[in-house]
Amino acid sequence: MRIIKNSQQMRSYSLKQKARGRTVGFVPTMGALHQGHLSLVEAARKGADLVVVSIFVNPLQFGPREDLTRYPKNLGRDKKLLQDRKVDVLFLPTAGDLYPKGFSSFVEVEGLSNKMCGRSRPDHFRGVTTVVAKLFNIVCPDTAFFGQKDFQQLVIIQRMAKDLGLPVKIIGLPIVREPDGLAMSSRNKYLNSRQRKAAAVLYRSLLRAREMVESGERAPRKVLRQVRSIIMAEPLAKLDYALILDPKTLEPVKRIRGRVLTALAANVGRARLIDNLLIQAK
Amino acid sequence: MRIIKNSQQMRSYSLKQKARGRTVGFVPTMGALHQGHLSLVEAARKGADLVVVSIFVNPLQFGPREDLTRYPKNLGRDKKLLQDRKVDVLFLPTAGDLYPKGFSSFVEVEGLSNKMCGRSRPDHFRGVTTVVAKLFNIVCPDTAFFGQKDFQQLVIIQRMAKDLGLPVKIIGLPIVREPDGLAMSSRNKYLNSRQRKAAAVLYRSLLRAREMVESGERAPRKVLRQVRSIIMAEPLAKLDYALILDPKTLEPVKRIRGRVLTALAANVGRARLIDNLLIQAK
Repeated sequence: MRIIKNSQQMRSYSLKQKARGRTVGFVPTMGALHQGHLSLVEAARKGADLVVVSIFVNPLQFGPREDLTRYPKNLGRDKKLLQDRKVDVLFLPTAGDLYPKGFSSFVEVEGLSNKMCGRSRPDHFRGVTTVVAKLFNIVCPDTAFFGQKDFQQLVIIQRMAKDLGLPVKIIGLPIVREPDGLAMSSRNKYLNSRQRKAAAVLYRSLLRAREMVESGERAPRKVLRQVRSIIMAEPLAKLDYALILDPKTLEPVKRIRGRVLTALAANVGRARLIDNLLIQAK
Repeated sequence: MRIIKNSQQMRSYSLKQKARGRTVGFVPTMGALHQGHLSLVEAARKGADLVVVSIFVNPLQFGPREDLTRYPKNLGRDKKLLQDRKVDVLFLPTAGDLYPKGFSSFVEVEGLSNKMCGRSRPDHFRGVTTVVAKLFNIVCPDTAFFGQKDFQQLVIIQRMAKDLGLPVKIIGLPIVREPDGLAMSSRNKYLNSRQRKAAAVLYRSLLRAREMVESGERAPRKVLRQVRSIIMAEPLAKLDYALILDPKTLEPVKRIRGRVLTALAANVGRARLIDNLLIQAK
């Protein structure tokens, strides 16, 4: 596995490979890799000739009171995991390289970025879209892989790629869960054992939502009342939002029809956790 | 000269040429071409194997009370001028192609976009950077050419390209002027003959600024007082701003040293005109 730390080197390496007719699959991450990331890497390995994974804890997407400085890091372990999956290039850019002196350009997706997580994390998605656009310009991938746990992020990046004509196919892959249903997340490391147990309430509430819809309930308000009460019954969890949305526009639906997204965010201890479930109304 | 109206066709054509080792020079325009544009085309012709010129009157960079609907158009003449200069591709995208339904992604350069013309034209530069970024993604140029008349635009686009890692070299070329010094602009067509004569006052005031600096004046305030009084003496001209700036940061200078930019904007009749002069303090 080649390790590249410099943008220009990364770009020329990718272009050289593409000139030889090889396709590039890209998995951008913030490191502290878990099975969710690795499922993206495996999909990239299957779908592209060359696999590039980046690890960059992007300061631009953290708010001033958020967890930038204590975000989990484990580069040694990450390297080994990627090597085992036959990743070709690990791209490790520095903040100084990606954000040169005087940096002041941003890519923003309006509307989609203000709702859901955007409400409690203003500027978060602007930081995400800016870094992803820049990483795309450096890595020049044919295909890029994102997890559906960050469903809003996935929809925003798809919108950005379409709107700005970025020549990258965006692939979203299913959430990978722990045995008790908790969605894998680097931030799960923040949980102590009591909090870790409590965190399973998120997925339990989503399963209850699915059950209700599958039993014929079509009123989002009624489903969400149940979801909220399940989470509020867990004293270690503090709900931020629970919503039933159109999975394309992320607009709340008035009535459940076809496929809907039930999405929620909650704080457990010092971890902000998100989860979602696509539910099909039969 | 090949005429391409579709983004995907434009992109695949460019990529095919680049795969053959040919370089692409790009001149984005809004049409109604004048000698200023043509000097960019000629530079592209000299500097690249393949020359692509786009004509697109970009709605995103016009304010609600601005001249979008009456912006001058002369496609027949434009085509002939470009053909004569051996342009390879004229790219004529439609607004529907560049801005698909639900379009909501923007590229923004903060700071630089709010001053000078950005004060009286909020969102103008956001429209420019968004369309230029998208055109770059479609045309995939090695080099792109912009006029120094839109000096602020040039600095903003250079900033954007650097910040976002756009793989395009940005070249700025000198202002082309009419015999009486008026900077060439498609908007000069809005002027009747009295206004046209009056408009020469802009350049006259810039020449006076240069004269003063070359005679040793180092106080921007004194130079600008002269510039303003020359323009205010012309009853058909209404000054928006006159500034002496650092040409890199576009920040006003406190004292004239080295190379400075004297930049101004004024309305003459219904035309908003801009002009500038780089002045070297000896």
